[in-house]
Amino acid sequence: MRFNSQVRTLAVAAAAAAALALPAMAQQKQPADSTVIRQFYDNALTSYDSYNNLRYLTKNIGGRLSGSPQAAAAVEWSRQVMDTMGLDRVYLQEVMVPHWVRGDKEVGQIFAKERGAVDVPVCALGGSVGTGKQGLSAEVVEVHSFEELEKLGKKHVKGKIVFFNRPFDNRLVYTMQAYSGAVDQRGGGPVAAAKLGAVGVIVRSMANELQDVPHTGGTRYKDDVTKIPAAAISTNGAELLSSMLKNDPKLKFHLRMTCETLPDVKSYNVIGEIKGSEKPEEIIVVGGHLDSWDLAEGAHDDGTGIVQSMEVLRLIKKLGIKPKRTIRAVMFMNEENGLRGGTKYAEFAKQNKEKHVAAIESDAGGFTPRGFGVEGTPAQLAKVAVWKPLLAPYGLNDFEEGHGGSDIGPLKGQGDITLIGYLPDSQRYFDYHHTPIDTFENVNRREMQLGAAAMASLVYLILEHGL
Amino acid sequence: MRFNSQVRTLAVAAAAAAALALPAMAQQKQPADSTVIRQFYDNALTSYDSYNNLRYLTKNIGGRLSGSPQAAAAVEWSRQVMDTMGLDRVYLQEVMVPHWVRGDKEVGQIFAKERGAVDVPVCALGGSVGTGKQGLSAEVVEVHSFEELEKLGKKHVKGKIVFFNRPFDNRLVYTMQAYSGAVDQRGGGPVAAAKLGAVGVIVRSMANELQDVPHTGGTRYKDDVTKIPAAAISTNGAELLSSMLKNDPKLKFHLRMTCETLPDVKSYNVIGEIKGSEKPEEIIVVGGHLDSWDLAEGAHDDGTGIVQSMEVLRLIKKLGIKPKRTIRAVMFMNEENGLRGGTKYAEFAKQNKEKHVAAIESDAGGFTPRGFGVEGTPAQLAKVAVWKPLLAPYGLNDFEEGHGGSDIGPLKGQGDITLIGYLPDSQRYFDYHHTPIDTFENVNRREMQLGAAAMASLVYLILEHGL
Repeated sequence: MRFNSQVRTLAVAAAAAAALALPAMAQQKQPADSTVIRQFYDNALTSYDSYNNLRYLTKNIGGRLSGSPQAAAAVEWSRQVMDTMGLDRVYLQEVMVPHWVRGDKEVGQIFAKERGAVDVPVCALGGSVGTGKQGLSAEVVEVHSFEELEKLGKKHVKGKIVFFNRPFDNRLVYTMQAYSGAVDQRGGGPVAAAKLGAVGVIVRSMANELQDVPHTGGTRYKDDVTKIPAAAISTNGAELLSSMLKNDPKLKFHLRMTCETLPDVKSYNVIGEIKGSEKPEEIIVVGGHLDSWDLAEGAHDDGTGIVQSMEVLRLIKKLGIKPKRTIRAVMFMNEENGLRGGTKYAEFAKQNKEKHVAAIESDAGGFTPRGFGVEGTPAQLAKVAVWKPLLAPYGLNDFEEGHGGSDIGPLKGQGDITLIGYLPDSQRYFDYHHTPIDTFENVNRREMQLGAAAMASLVYLILEHGL
Repeated sequence: MRFNSQVRTLAVAAAAAAALALPAMAQQKQPADSTVIRQFYDNALTSYDSYNNLRYLTKNIGGRLSGSPQAAAAVEWSRQVMDTMGLDRVYLQEVMVPHWVRGDKEVGQIFAKERGAVDVPVCALGGSVGTGKQGLSAEVVEVHSFEELEKLGKKHVKGKIVFFNRPFDNRLVYTMQAYSGAVDQRGGGPVAAAKLGAVGVIVRSMANELQDVPHTGGTRYKDDVTKIPAAAISTNGAELLSSMLKNDPKLKFHLRMTCETLPDVKSYNVIGEIKGSEKPEEIIVVGGHLDSWDLAEGAHDDGTGIVQSMEVLRLIKKLGIKPKRTIRAVMFMNEENGLRGGTKYAEFAKQNKEKHVAAIESDAGGFTPRGFGVEGTPAQLAKVAVWKPLLAPYGLNDFEEGHGGSDIGPLKGQGDITLIGYLPDSQRYFDYHHTPIDTFENVNRREMQLGAAAMASLVYLILEHGL
C-alpha cells in the first residue's frame, strides 16, 4: 500500500473530534457516555503505563506459577503499582495455593527400529507426577478419543504410554472452540489411561499450528486412580511420533520428568478499589490472573489481563471520574492450577454479604478487541448488548452468550451477578498459550491498549447505569 | 486460561454442522450461499496451499521492486502457479515500469557538539535521487507541517536538510487514518523543501511504534523543482534527532545514498481467469500487487494479497463452482512506485470495452478480517452491505464507505463498477509496512487464510447475484 490518501471515514473519527472539542470534564455536568468512552480510548492509546507495566511483569518478574518466588514478587509488584494510583483501598486476600515444580528440563525420546534415539520436545503437564530420575520407557498406543481408548481396553493399554493425538479442528473460526474440542485429552487423559493400566500419557499440544514448542497446562488426577506421569508433546513431535508408530508399532518412548508437588504455600489475591459515590454497596469487578505457567513470561496468559485491569482503574482516576458504584480490580492468584484465588474471592464475597453487580474477566490474550461474551440469562445478555451502539465504532461487534472467565466463575449465582468475558481476536492465542513463546514481544501495544479501553468503557457504563 | 470448557456457541458452529452434513455439491442443485461460504472457510483453513505460496514468494523470491530480477521471477512464478490451477486462461499484460535501485546501504549520522558521529537508521525513499558517493552534510531544520515550513521561509531553510517529524496520531483506532494524517510528509516533503532551497529531506518513518527500523515508501518530485535526496529515519532515530536538535540547533546531519533511477523495464500484470457460464461478459476482479519494496520480503505488503487472490480461484475450482460471471485474479505490477500496472489494466479494459462489475483489492495486510470498504455511491455500498448477515458470523462486521485500492483505482468510472477494499484488522500493519521486518514469519497463517475465505465469499456472492 502506498501514499494515496485514504478516503475512509469512520464514525469514530467524528466522535474523536467531538470529544476533543469539549472543555475539561471537571467544569461540566455529567458528560455523555460517548465522550467518556472516547476519552478512555484517547488516553489508553497514548499512555505507555499499561505497556510498561506489562514489560515489568513479564521481563523483570517473568513466569510466576503459584507458590513460586516469582508469584510472590507479582503479588508485591501489583500491590505497589496500585498503591501509587490514589485508590480508596488496596488490599491482599490470603489464599493457600498448590506448589507444583517442574524440576529438570524434561526428556522425550523415540526409540524405533533401525534408528537411534530421536529427541522430541515435551514438557510435563502441570500437576503431573514425575517419572523418577531414571525415566520411564514403554511402548506407545495412539488414540484420538476416550471412546477409542475404551475400545482398546486393558489388553492393549496395560504397561504402555497412551498417546492422545486428536488435533485442533482448524475449520473453527473461533479458536477457543477448537481448544474446547481437544482439551479433554489434557485434563482427563491420565485418569482414563491409568484406569486401563497405562504407565504414562503423552498429549498432543493444544495448538492450531504445527510447531516445535510443547504447550503445558493443567491435568487432573483422581484419588482412587493411580497417578501416572503426563506430558505434552509439540504438534510437530506428535506428527512425527504418529508417523513413526505407523512404521514401527513396537517403538519405545522414553520420558523423563522430575516434577513434583510440594506443600501448599500462602499467597494472595491483590485488590484495588474505588468506592462508589452513590451506591457503594454495588460492586463491579474487573480482573485477570496474576499467576502464569512457568515456561515463559505469561504475557498473553495473563499478563495482559492484569495490566488491562489496572489500566481500567488508572483511566477512571485520570479522567477524574467519581463512579456511582464501587469498582474493584482483582488480580486473582492460581487460575492455572487450582483456581484457589477465584474460589477464595467468592467465599469472602459471600461471607461479607457483598452485592456484586457484574464481573468482567480478561483472560483470552491481549489481542484486538472483538466484543464481550456474557455468561448468564438472555436478559442479562440483552442488558449488556444495549450498549453495542456506543462500542461498535471501536470494533466491538460481538455481544454473545459466552464464557465469563475461570476466576469469576465461582461468583456465579451470588445475587444477580452478570459474568462477562472480554473477547479479543482469537486467531493467535494458541500460538503462544502455555508455551515458552508467550512473551512480551508477542504482544502488540495497541491491541492490548484497545482491550483496556474496551474494558474501561463497559465497566464505566455499568458503574454509571447498573445492570 | 485453563481447561474449563467453553460454553460459547457461535452461529457459525451451527452453520458448520449444517454444511458438513450436506452431501457433495456436484449431485445437488444450487447450494445455499451460506453453505458455499462455509465450505470456502472449511477449505481455506485446512489447506496449506496459500500459506505455502506465501512462503515461496517471500522466502524464495523475496523483495521484488519493479524492474528487479525478483519482480521478473514473481511474474513467472505467479504465472506458473495459476497455470496448474485448471483455469480457462492465464495471461500476461505487458507494461513498462520504473526501475529505481537503492544502491549501497544508506548512511545517516548526526554530528553534534561534544559528541562524535551518532549513527541513526535511515533508508532512501523510493524514487529519491542519491547524494553522490561523498554524501551530503548540512544543518537540520525540524518541522511538523508544510505550514510551519512555509513560515520559516527561504531564510531558515536554504542550504539545510528539512526534517519532517510529525508523528502518527495514536488516538486513531483505525491506523490507516493515522497514516493518512502523516504520509503527506513523505510524498510531498522533497518538493516543498526544495522550493525553499533545502538540500535534502529526512522524514519520520510512517509508524505507530517507536522502532529502530526505517520505513521506506515512494516520494514525488516535480519536473520544475530541484530534485533533492529524501530519506526516511526510524521513529526512534527521529526522536533522538529531535532531542539532539534541542541541545544543539547547529548540529550537522550526514546522509549518504547511492540510489538512482535507471531506464524503464518491461514487466507484466499476471492474470488468471475463469469464464462465466451465464454472463461471461460481466467481469469481477480480485487482486493485489506483485511488486514490493526491496528492503524485505513483501509479506503483508502485498504477498498476502497475491496469495489470497490466487486462493479465491483455487477455492472456486476446488468446490467445483461454475461461476455465472467471469472472475479474474489480477496480480498487478508496480503498485509501490508508479501504479503502471493498475493504469495499464484499466486502459486495456477500456480499449476492449470490457464490462467490470466489481473489483476487490487486498492490500492492507494479511490480518484478521474485519470487513470491506466500498469506494462508490451510497447505493453501491448498500448493495454490498446486503450480504452482511451472511458474512458477520465470520467476524466481518465493517461494511463502510472506504478506499477500494490503488491498483483498481484507475478502473473507477468505467461503467457501474464498484471498487471494494478488503479490510483486515489494522493494528499491526504499520509495524511492518515497508520495512525489513515485513516477513513471512510476521504473517499468521489463519489470519491470512480467513482473509482469503472472506474475499472468496464476497466474490462468490457477486459472481452469482451481480451487483
